[in-house]
Amino acid sequence: MFTRIDHIGIACRNLDEAIRFYRETYGFEVTHEEVNEEQGVREAMLRINGTDDGGASYLQLLEPIRDDSPVAKFLERHGEGVHHIAFGTADVAEAAATVRERGVRVLYETPRNGSMGSLITFLHPKDCGGVLTELVQARTDGAPSAE
Amino acid sequence: MFTRIDHIGIACRNLDEAIRFYRETYGFEVTHEEVNEEQGVREAMLRINGTDDGGASYLQLLEPIRDDSPVAKFLERHGEGVHHIAFGTADVAEAAATVRERGVRVLYETPRNGSMGSLITFLHPKDCGGVLTELVQARTDGAPSAE
Repeated sequence: MFTRIDHIGIACRNLDEAIRFYRETYGFEVTHEEVNEEQGVREAMLRINGTDDGGASYLQLLEPIRDDSPVAKFLERHGEGVHHIAFGTADVAEAAATVRERGVRVLYETPRNGSMGSLITFLHPKDCGGVLTELVQARTDGAPSAE
Repeated sequence: MFTRIDHIGIACRNLDEAIRFYRETYGFEVTHEEVNEEQGVREAMLRINGTDDGGASYLQLLEPIRDDSPVAKFLERHGEGVHHIAFGTADVAEAAATVRERGVRVLYETPRNGSMGSLITFLHPKDCGGVLTELVQARTDGAPSAE
């Protein structure tokens, strides 16, 4: 059902400073930047490695663009750090339905737009051992995005 | 320098329950279990995907075996959730020296034993945007472990 670690989402107060840290300290480069109005974030994807399902694993750096976004609330409560983890799947709607049947609350009725044209949903962290867990269907995994 | 996301370390109160959750909900299987006395944890590695550097990405589930272990203290302060992230490298001592030169505190003078015969070190989370960051040289990456 899940074929890769798609990304690790990291909440930061200043995206440009976070990008600079990851570039200058580790040599990681930004693959993609975008604003996701629905999620209330400005974000950068840093590709770390390819995966044997034909995809890749990324770090996703997230800066809130408004005070009521989930990432802004996370920063208020916890400070900077790991916000969520994401698994890649070929069919996010099907994976979400399966996981829901197994007793985990899925946060969206239907998948929404994620990074780089992906389709995403989130699972309730209280049902996942405290881990906010995202499911990602990359644009290249098959079906078109919801854009 | 870093060629893959090696693993995501997740702190849990009960390893057997966490393993059951990841197996029954997502179909992830345990690749390896061990006790790391030095780190004060009982742990399970769940292989998620292969990576294009010849390695793999795992989830690492961590249950403390004593109250003064770092993972026990994390659970006290934060509850269950993501404890750290780890990048894979061919030479952990060299990578640690490079990162130290770039102004990040490295927590061990010399690398220590990690999961599955790996050599590891940790970087100070306050120097890494709140992210406790581990560097991992897998046994298969080259040099023998410190065992």
